[in-house]
Amino acid sequence: MARFEAALALAESRTGLVPAEHAQTIARVCERAEFDATALARAARTTGAIAIPFVQSLTAQVAAVSAEAARHVHFGATSQDVTDTAVALCLRSAGERLIGLATRAGDAAAQLAERHARTPLAARTLLQPALPVPFGWKAAVWLSALTRSRSRLPAALAQACTLQFGGAGGTLSAFGARGDAVAEALAGELDLPRPALPWHSARDAFARLGAEIAIVAGAVGKIGRDVSLLMQAEVGEAAEPAAAGRGGSSSLPHKRNPVGSLLALEAAQRAPGLAATLLVQLAPEHERGLGQWQSQWFTLRELLCSAASGAAAMAEVLEGLEVDAAAMRRNLERTRGLVYSEAVAVRLSRTLGKAAAHQLIEKLCARAQREGITLLEALRADPEAARAIPAPELPALFDAENAFGSAGAMIARALAEWRAVRES
Amino acid sequence: MARFEAALALAESRTGLVPAEHAQTIARVCERAEFDATALARAARTTGAIAIPFVQSLTAQVAAVSAEAARHVHFGATSQDVTDTAVALCLRSAGERLIGLATRAGDAAAQLAERHARTPLAARTLLQPALPVPFGWKAAVWLSALTRSRSRLPAALAQACTLQFGGAGGTLSAFGARGDAVAEALAGELDLPRPALPWHSARDAFARLGAEIAIVAGAVGKIGRDVSLLMQAEVGEAAEPAAAGRGGSSSLPHKRNPVGSLLALEAAQRAPGLAATLLVQLAPEHERGLGQWQSQWFTLRELLCSAASGAAAMAEVLEGLEVDAAAMRRNLERTRGLVYSEAVAVRLSRTLGKAAAHQLIEKLCARAQREGITLLEALRADPEAARAIPAPELPALFDAENAFGSAGAMIARALAEWRAVRES
Amino acid sequence: MARFEAALALAESRTGLVPAEHAQTIARVCERAEFDATALARAARTTGAIAIPFVQSLTAQVAAVSAEAARHVHFGATSQDVTDTAVALCLRSAGERLIGLATRAGDAAAQLAERHARTPLAARTLLQPALPVPFGWKAAVWLSALTRSRSRLPAALAQACTLQFGGAGGTLSAFGARGDAVAEALAGELDLPRPALPWHSARDAFARLGAEIAIVAGAVGKIGRDVSLLMQAEVGEAAEPAAAGRGGSSSLPHKRNPVGSLLALEAAQRAPGLAATLLVQLAPEHERGLGQWQSQWFTLRELLCSAASGAAAMAEVLEGLEVDAAAMRRNLERTRGLVYSEAVAVRLSRTLGKAAAHQLIEKLCARAQREGITLLEALRADPEAARAIPAPELPALFDAENAFGSAGAMIARALAEWRAVRES
Amino acid sequence: MARFEAALALAESRTGLVPAEHAQTIARVCERAEFDATALARAARTTGAIAIPFVQSLTAQVAAVSAEAARHVHFGATSQDVTDTAVALCLRSAGERLIGLATRAGDAAAQLAERHARTPLAARTLLQPALPVPFGWKAAVWLSALTRSRSRLPAALAQACTLQFGGAGGTLSAFGARGDAVAEALAGELDLPRPALPWHSARDAFARLGAEIAIVAGAVGKIGRDVSLLMQAEVGEAAEPAAAGRGGSSSLPHKRNPVGSLLALEAAQRAPGLAATLLVQLAPEHERGLGQWQSQWFTLRELLCSAASGAAAMAEVLEGLEVDAAAMRRNLERTRGLVYSEAVAVRLSRTLGKAAAHQLIEKLCARAQREGITLLEALRADPEAARAIPAPELPALFDAENAFGSAGAMIARALAEWRAVRES
Repeated sequence: MARFEAALALAESRTGLVPAEHAQTIARVCERAEFDATALARAARTTGAIAIPFVQSLTAQVAAVSAEAARHVHFGATSQDVTDTAVALCLRSAGERLIGLATRAGDAAAQLAERHARTPLAARTLLQPALPVPFGWKAAVWLSALTRSRSRLPAALAQACTLQFGGAGGTLSAFGARGDAVAEALAGELDLPRPALPWHSARDAFARLGAEIAIVAGAVGKIGRDVSLLMQAEVGEAAEPAAAGRGGSSSLPHKRNPVGSLLALEAAQRAPGLAATLLVQLAPEHERGLGQWQSQWFTLRELLCSAASGAAAMAEVLEGLEVDAAAMRRNLERTRGLVYSEAVAVRLSRTLGKAAAHQLIEKLCARAQREGITLLEALRADPEAARAIPAPELPALFDAENAFGSAGAMIARALAEWRAVRES
Repeated sequence: MARFEAALALAESRTGLVPAEHAQTIARVCERAEFDATALARAARTTGAIAIPFVQSLTAQVAAVSAEAARHVHFGATSQDVTDTAVALCLRSAGERLIGLATRAGDAAAQLAERHARTPLAARTLLQPALPVPFGWKAAVWLSALTRSRSRLPAALAQACTLQFGGAGGTLSAFGARGDAVAEALAGELDLPRPALPWHSARDAFARLGAEIAIVAGAVGKIGRDVSLLMQAEVGEAAEPAAAGRGGSSSLPHKRNPVGSLLALEAAQRAPGLAATLLVQLAPEHERGLGQWQSQWFTLRELLCSAASGAAAMAEVLEGLEVDAAAMRRNLERTRGLVYSEAVAVRLSRTLGKAAAHQLIEKLCARAQREGITLLEALRADPEAARAIPAPELPALFDAENAFGSAGAMIARALAEWRAVRES
Repeated sequence: MARFEAALALAESRTGLVPAEHAQTIARVCERAEFDATALARAARTTGAIAIPFVQSLTAQVAAVSAEAARHVHFGATSQDVTDTAVALCLRSAGERLIGLATRAGDAAAQLAERHARTPLAARTLLQPALPVPFGWKAAVWLSALTRSRSRLPAALAQACTLQFGGAGGTLSAFGARGDAVAEALAGELDLPRPALPWHSARDAFARLGAEIAIVAGAVGKIGRDVSLLMQAEVGEAAEPAAAGRGGSSSLPHKRNPVGSLLALEAAQRAPGLAATLLVQLAPEHERGLGQWQSQWFTLRELLCSAASGAAAMAEVLEGLEVDAAAMRRNLERTRGLVYSEAVAVRLSRTLGKAAAHQLIEKLCARAQREGITLLEALRADPEAARAIPAPELPALFDAENAFGSAGAMIARALAEWRAVRES
Repeated sequence: MARFEAALALAESRTGLVPAEHAQTIARVCERAEFDATALARAARTTGAIAIPFVQSLTAQVAAVSAEAARHVHFGATSQDVTDTAVALCLRSAGERLIGLATRAGDAAAQLAERHARTPLAARTLLQPALPVPFGWKAAVWLSALTRSRSRLPAALAQACTLQFGGAGGTLSAFGARGDAVAEALAGELDLPRPALPWHSARDAFARLGAEIAIVAGAVGKIGRDVSLLMQAEVGEAAEPAAAGRGGSSSLPHKRNPVGSLLALEAAQRAPGLAATLLVQLAPEHERGLGQWQSQWFTLRELLCSAASGAAAMAEVLEGLEVDAAAMRRNLERTRGLVYSEAVAVRLSRTLGKAAAHQLIEKLCARAQREGITLLEALRADPEAARAIPAPELPALFDAENAFGSAGAMIARALAEWRAVRES
């Protein structure tokens, strides 16, 4: 807020509205000004706008240096100009940090996608094993959401971080013909884009940014969901990086908890309600509404902290993820070959035609499940099936890598998209 | 959190698990213990639970007094026991304050309902004047929502503020057969009810309380909505209490803003998204979930502060509301008697039968609107209408109080319900 | 809506406002009246209220029987009276069905709690095995949330299902002194409670009910979460009931999907946003707002269908749940005894004092994990530990039932509370 | 869904996987296939996916024509492929209609901005008159939000409407090396972009689109908010277009309700909760989640219908908006010149210096308010003020157009941005 008032004085000096000397004084005081946050908050309850006691306090601090300069503080601006522009300034740097964290998470996911392009694990649909896919492909799916966020978030951030400057009614009425020049200079001082007109009552850019932030939280929450499921003792296919004190329990010495995943899932659960608040606040009354801009900084603060917490946690987890390829294979084998049922069915149909093949594979799966034998055993024990597929062809059907389909090409495309976004 | 640990030590001492002397030491240290919030928050990112560094710090502070006593800190409890019970303790006192504020708002609404039981103003439906109602009846409608909140909020609060105590798995396993006795003693120490079993993974009481708090925010937001509309310069029927500096503007010296209404509407817009977050967090994984209890205190804190801010603001507004009965009458008259169309129609139908009466009143209203005359003038200018209603009866039809219907009885009932809830 | 109009005519006849004969005619036509839903919806876009074309169509249908009777249709009521009361009537029967489904789910959970009061499985905190608890205790936790819903939902439903009747402005102005009598008679006809005054602009009872419905969705969603996790192939401790075609896959013949859990989790994810919509709509303008009551029936319909879908699915799942006690034991054993670390630590401390015991158990757990041996083996291999606990005592420490703590009492209390609510 | 299956068969025929003849048969049957929606819905409760009974029914319908062809139906696809792609196809056309409605609303707002570029009305901040602004500038603020939506919505729609095609595990495993070719052909058949990899578990594009739709609802809700406030009888500065039956009341013949604004505000209140649901569903389990994709079409349907309802209503309202420039001037005058306080203060400061000017204007405003005189009268009655401003300069200070500041340039920029987006 002080940065806004400093820049305003300088901009008004540059357009001849405030003597340079006074503008310099204001700017200097703004740099070192101190505010009693509790007192401001208390006063804001009577004034309805924190900017009013803020400007009073600042003016008093300037007046202590120069009574003349003090008369020029905040000239032509309105409370909401200060508050909203201050939010934009805070958002810009907080948003950049979030982009950085999401980029780290994406880079780590990209590395996993590349490194594990041929490491098989069971795809799980509705939490049941389906068929083998590369773990790198799973990481590429995580990456794909981060790629879209990495592309959209900076744009949404840029659109939300623009100058708010309209004065009492929104038309820069106090400046006569010079309003646009002041606005231009002010935008320059703060290095913020100047929109076509003020957005006091058009809060969509904040709502759009809020949704993007919640989507980042969701993207890392999704990774946390999967990592915490893979880290279950009964699954054991991946683990968050180990470190002293990390994931311990206050009562159980043997535990190792997925604390990064926890933080990401926390964010994914908390962000949507906050983003919804911003969506609810799109229809303020006339030129300045009751109850939207006055508190959107609370909401945006919680939203950004929440998403940044989740993104930081998952960046760290992915960078140090312990992948247990042997456990992945073991779990595939524990399905007794049933995860290869699709491959067998496709091969059977080449010999028997689709109808007969389909009936046969259902019979074989049912038998394997009923008798607790493997699908391969069921296949060998069935004369029709044994005839249909020459024995030397059998191992290939039960080879995980042969079931990867287009996974390799998909990974390559996902990586290319990530790199393109990274470098843009 | 320190209160929990103190009470736990004392409860364990009372059940013979911890020597009385050590329990006393722990309790004494808890009273004066100091914590480095930033350090706890930082450590919580590695441990996934703020309770872990908290207990470590507390244990160190106890150990500085007695190494023996330190060994008994937190015995048998789990991180979530401390966190959730601490939230319950905070909720209890914050909730009581919110109840107090809602009660103040209700008392003020009740006073207005009583005082203005015969002060006519236009009912407005879809923001258009409908017909005269007493302002006191309008206040009674405000009161009716507060009455239901005043009845439900304490119950929801009581249900949410219960002991959380289950130990590592939730079954008080560390205590063998003595778990229930410890729990009972602990509940007694903290003066919190003991539930049938722990609610680590059953967060419905928080969600229910969250919704009740959002409903309070809505109830005061509704009043803020109406007051801010009545306070529009063009309406001018009511105004928030005046006070030095209250509702001023940073750029316009003539303004008087509805700042209390603003705060109430702010709460009504912010609370629902926060309450929704708690509703989203009802399905945690197994015995302790990832991402719910770890942050519900943030959400509940924002929610309570938001509703309390709105309730405090509207209590103050209603207690000092400036009601301009003359302006209310003036605005009724500015409708040129059209707000009495229903009364005229009912009277016409006694003479003409309903069908003819209905056609006639539509014609009269249309004429009044077209020609800019009053409904009374249109009525007198229409031979059929003039014949249908004897002239001496006309004034009564255009008397606001005659249009009040059952308003009086309704106000009485609303007041009675408020008093019953107040005294229960 | 037709039921409302029929009841209104009858009530007005009973209070002498409408000739009995005409009221009977209206009531008879209402019973068989037919409406063109598409035409009503289209007309509602111009009128802003579906009740207007509805009343027009009904009036025409009555007029086809008796022009005289037609004149009395809807007398003294307003659009919102019809719409809101119709919603209340629909809610009442839909709500009863939801209560019935939640009761079925609760009964089934209670049975599981009783039947499996001593069936051990691993409690899982943050998705990691903690220590043994009875599966019946886990079911009792599920039950506890349903118990609170079963207690609160009927109350919230009753509070939401009340007569809406205020006429044009809300004060029953068309009826002069007879408004209360008509309202009383109307409430009697519809068997709905009559509130102190209308709630056109006080929508908190719908918001409260919406939250309760979302909480039911969450309570069954929680069960679905746990069942789907227990049903993972790698865990295999419980399974949804098998039935022909149930949970199959369109491409994988071997799959068996947790479809009931899916439906419950769907409800738990969809209900909060809908409930939030009702919380957002608590501050309508003046005596009749823009955009709340006009669509809350959409929101309530989606909400009820969603929760009922989830509750029905989980009732069916719990009634036929396949519990694999052997698998539960196997998974406990797969932790190599580490789930007994708390029990061992407590026993060690009796001999060694707490400080030494704690150090020792940490050492033993670390060794077991490092060397891939069981905790018992680590214990026996450690001279200090072996000395501290006499060999004959060891088996009891590694007996799941000895770790149950207060679980039995907790289950008993949860069952008692359920029964009390069931019978109230 | 049938379009997907037809296109799949044709794509598989083009890649040599299905004989052309059979693919043609399938495609032909798909064009005329009929489905029993109730039966599908019922069956979906057992299968957990509506696609399963759908494919069964379609296969039966194909088999009635050719048993051979029937064997190729749905080959290699999974349930979610059908459902998600079908949603994408529906979204595309529904989304185009929404874009069209938003464009109509924007065009109408642009016309108002142009036509009323010099029509003064009071800017209202916190619902209190501030100072004169052009009504066209107010319309330009409305337009600015629509401009951003018109720019972002098509992009979000395009990103959400992409092919979903991954087969059982997501890797197109059934097609061996030919998966990409089939996917490419299928995308071509449906004219949908093919993403890098399937998005079964990466639902961010739906969430992003949902937020954009809610933002459109908010943008039109904002206009509805302002129009309904301007249309208040006490304000009377604008009115929704009149039409037979439009905005009538079931009980009050004189009423004219803002029904278009109502529908827009309804959308603005309902959309956020629905958009939040999609934000909540970003973290599904592994390769196919429980409860997200199975119902997102309900949510998206409600969301689109809601926003389209609001946008259509406001397009109609803006196209026929009745603007009462005389009433706008009258209301400005009713403030007794206080809306010119800023202009007077700025002029005074040129003569007196800012400090003295500020004190003086506060004194004058207070006096005008206290004595019920105009600011001009107060000014003339004050010797110091009268001296400070030469009498001939006074009228210009109380001329609304002189207070417009940069409004003209702002309007021009807003129009230029709209046209640029329109033509892109």
